[in-house]
Amino acid sequence: MTEPLPLGSTIGILGGGQLGRMLSVAASRLGFRTHIFEPGAEPPAGHVADAVTTAPYEDDAALRAFASACDIVTFEFENVPTSALDLIEAQVPIRPGREALRISQDRLTEKEFLQGLGLNVAPYADIPDQAALDAAVASIGTPSILKTRRFGYDGKGQVRLRSAEAAGGTMSQMGGAPCVLEGFVDFSHEVSVIAARSVTGEVACFDPGENVHRDGILHTTTVPARLSASQRTDAVLMAARILNALDYVGVLGVELFVTPQGLIVNEIAPRVHNSGHWTQQGCSVDQFEQHIRAITGWPLGDGSRYADVVMENLIGDDMDRVPELAREKNTSLHLYGKASVKPGRKMGHVNRITR
Amino acid sequence: MTEPLPLGSTIGILGGGQLGRMLSVAASRLGFRTHIFEPGAEPPAGHVADAVTTAPYEDDAALRAFASACDIVTFEFENVPTSALDLIEAQVPIRPGREALRISQDRLTEKEFLQGLGLNVAPYADIPDQAALDAAVASIGTPSILKTRRFGYDGKGQVRLRSAEAAGGTMSQMGGAPCVLEGFVDFSHEVSVIAARSVTGEVACFDPGENVHRDGILHTTTVPARLSASQRTDAVLMAARILNALDYVGVLGVELFVTPQGLIVNEIAPRVHNSGHWTQQGCSVDQFEQHIRAITGWPLGDGSRYADVVMENLIGDDMDRVPELAREKNTSLHLYGKASVKPGRKMGHVNRITR
Repeated sequence: MTEPLPLGSTIGILGGGQLGRMLSVAASRLGFRTHIFEPGAEPPAGHVADAVTTAPYEDDAALRAFASACDIVTFEFENVPTSALDLIEAQVPIRPGREALRISQDRLTEKEFLQGLGLNVAPYADIPDQAALDAAVASIGTPSILKTRRFGYDGKGQVRLRSAEAAGGTMSQMGGAPCVLEGFVDFSHEVSVIAARSVTGEVACFDPGENVHRDGILHTTTVPARLSASQRTDAVLMAARILNALDYVGVLGVELFVTPQGLIVNEIAPRVHNSGHWTQQGCSVDQFEQHIRAITGWPLGDGSRYADVVMENLIGDDMDRVPELAREKNTSLHLYGKASVKPGRKMGHVNRITR
Repeated sequence: MTEPLPLGSTIGILGGGQLGRMLSVAASRLGFRTHIFEPGAEPPAGHVADAVTTAPYEDDAALRAFASACDIVTFEFENVPTSALDLIEAQVPIRPGREALRISQDRLTEKEFLQGLGLNVAPYADIPDQAALDAAVASIGTPSILKTRRFGYDGKGQVRLRSAEAAGGTMSQMGGAPCVLEGFVDFSHEVSVIAARSVTGEVACFDPGENVHRDGILHTTTVPARLSASQRTDAVLMAARILNALDYVGVLGVELFVTPQGLIVNEIAPRVHNSGHWTQQGCSVDQFEQHIRAITGWPLGDGSRYADVVMENLIGDDMDRVPELAREKNTSLHLYGKASVKPGRKMGHVNRITR
C-alpha cells in the first residue's frame, strides 16, 4: 500500500478507550470512518465510531470479520495479544508495524533496543528470579524500581526498592513474573516528545512537553517545557532515531529524563500518548490526527505550536470538579464518557491555554 | 428541567449533515451521547454518533422511538416539519424552543420580529403575488432581491432584480411561493455574531467574524473582523437583544451588514452557523460545544479568542485541493465525510491560523 487511503475508508482500532475515542474523532475530521474492536462492554470510543465489535481478542471469527471490514488497522494500547495481531495481519495491514509492538511490550527488550541505538537509559538488569534481583540490587544499588517486563502501565506492576533489605522476597510479590530492575536516575524533570513518521519516512515532532506525575499517573503536561535549545534539539533527534530504527509509521511517545548529564530515555509507547493531549488546543493538527495521517499514507500535518498549554488529567474523583472546571476561563474540557468512576481511572482531561 | 443534564445522557439531533456531525463530536467531549434522526441515507453525522435513525420526518413511529431514546432534542437545520416537532415535543424538550424556529422559518415573520425589536433591517415588502411585486419594486426600487419566504438557503430560492422591467413575470419563476422583496443595502462588508444563551439566561458571544460569499455561498470567515470598538459592541448587543427576546437556549447566528449608517441585520439562523467554524481552532470552547452546553443546562464556556483564524469553505470540486491543503502550514482540515461531491455542496472547511 503506497497510495494514500481514499476518503471514506475504514480505520480499525484495537481498543476502545479514550485514545481510541480521540483517534476516532480525528479520523472523522479527515473524512474516514472507524471500527472499534474492544472486549469490554460500552467502550468510550464506541460513541463516536461508525461501528463497534464487542468480542474478546481470542474470538477468531470476530477478528476476521473485523479485519475484513477495515482498510487499515491500528491500536490504542500495546498489549494486544500476538495471536490476534497475526490473524488480523493476514488480512489487512497493521500500522504501526509489529516490530515496535514487540519491542515496547517488553521492558527488557525495549532497553536493549534503546541502548543499541546509542541512547542513554537508566542502569538496568534482567531479573528472572530472586537470586538475580539480589545480585542486581548489589550492583545497581537502591533506591531502584522493580518492574514486570510486560503488561505494566500507570505505575501498575512496579515496586520501589528503598534498600537492599527491602528487595528480599520481592519477586514473589510480583507473582513470579519476569522483571527488570531499573536504577535510580537523578533527574530534574521529565519531558516527552510526541513524534510521528509517515509512510514515506517523513518525521515530525511536536514541541516537547514537561510532565508531572502523581501516584505513578501523569498529572500535568506543560508546553513549552523547561529545556534549552540544545536539549530540545537532542530530544527531537532521539525521537527521530527511534522512529527510523523501527521503520515506524504513526505516532510514538518518548519519555525522557532531564539530567545534568543529558537526556535519558525512560520509555517509549508505540501509540498516541497522554502527554500529547495538549496538542488538541495548541496545534493546527493534533497528535490524533497526525497518527491517522501517518497510518493512512497521508502527508504529516503541521504540528507547530500556536499557544502555550497546560494539560491536566482528571483521575477518579476529579470528576467531582467538572462543574467548576466547566466555568473556568481559557479551559477546554475533554471527558471520555466512561460509564463509572474508579480511583486511578482516567476520566478526562482539561487543556488550559496559558498564552 | 432546571438541573444540568447528567453526563452520559443522550442528545437527539434532527438532521445528520456536517453541523450535526460537529455537534456530535462536541457532545462527546462533554461525555454525552448523540442520536441522529435523518431521512437521507449515510448521514455524515452518523459516523460519529452513538445511534442513527434513518426515517422520513413523516414517520410517526420512528419519531416517537427517537424521542423516547433521547433526553433532549436539538436540530441542525431550521426546516424540520412542524408536525414532527409537535410529536417529539410531546415526549422530550426541544432546544432551542419552537418560537425561534417559527420566526426564522419565514423571512417575512423574521423581518417583522427584528424590526419590532428596534433593529435595522433592509427595506422589505410582503410579496404574495405579481401585483404586489410590481408595486414593491416601484417603492423599494432596484437592484433588489426577491426571496421565497420559506425554505431558502445558500442562495437558493432567490432572484436578483436589476431593473423594474426584470421584475415582470418573476413570481411565476418562484412557482407561486409567497415571497419577500428586499431592497439593496449599500454595505461595505458582512459580519456575523455567533451568540449563545444558557438556560439561566446567561449570554456569551464569540468575536464577530467577517464573511465573504461566492455565488451566494459563504466562502471565508476572517477573525478579527474589520469593526470599530463601538461597532463590535453594537453587534454583540444586537445579538443579545435577539436572544433575550426569543428566550433562546442554544447558539444562534446573526448576519449583519456593515454600513456607514450602522449595522443592519441580514438574517438570523437558530443553530450553529457556518461562519462560526473558525471557533474550532480559535477558542477553548467552540460554537458546537457552546450549543451543547446551553441545551444541556451546563454553564456557557469561555469562548474568548486566542488566535487569529481564516475559515475557508471547501465547496464541490474544492475537494480536489485536499492533497495540497493537507500539506499547508498552520492549517486544520475538517472534512465532512459526504459520500459524493456535487457542485455547490459543502464538503469541508479549513481553518488557517494567521497569528
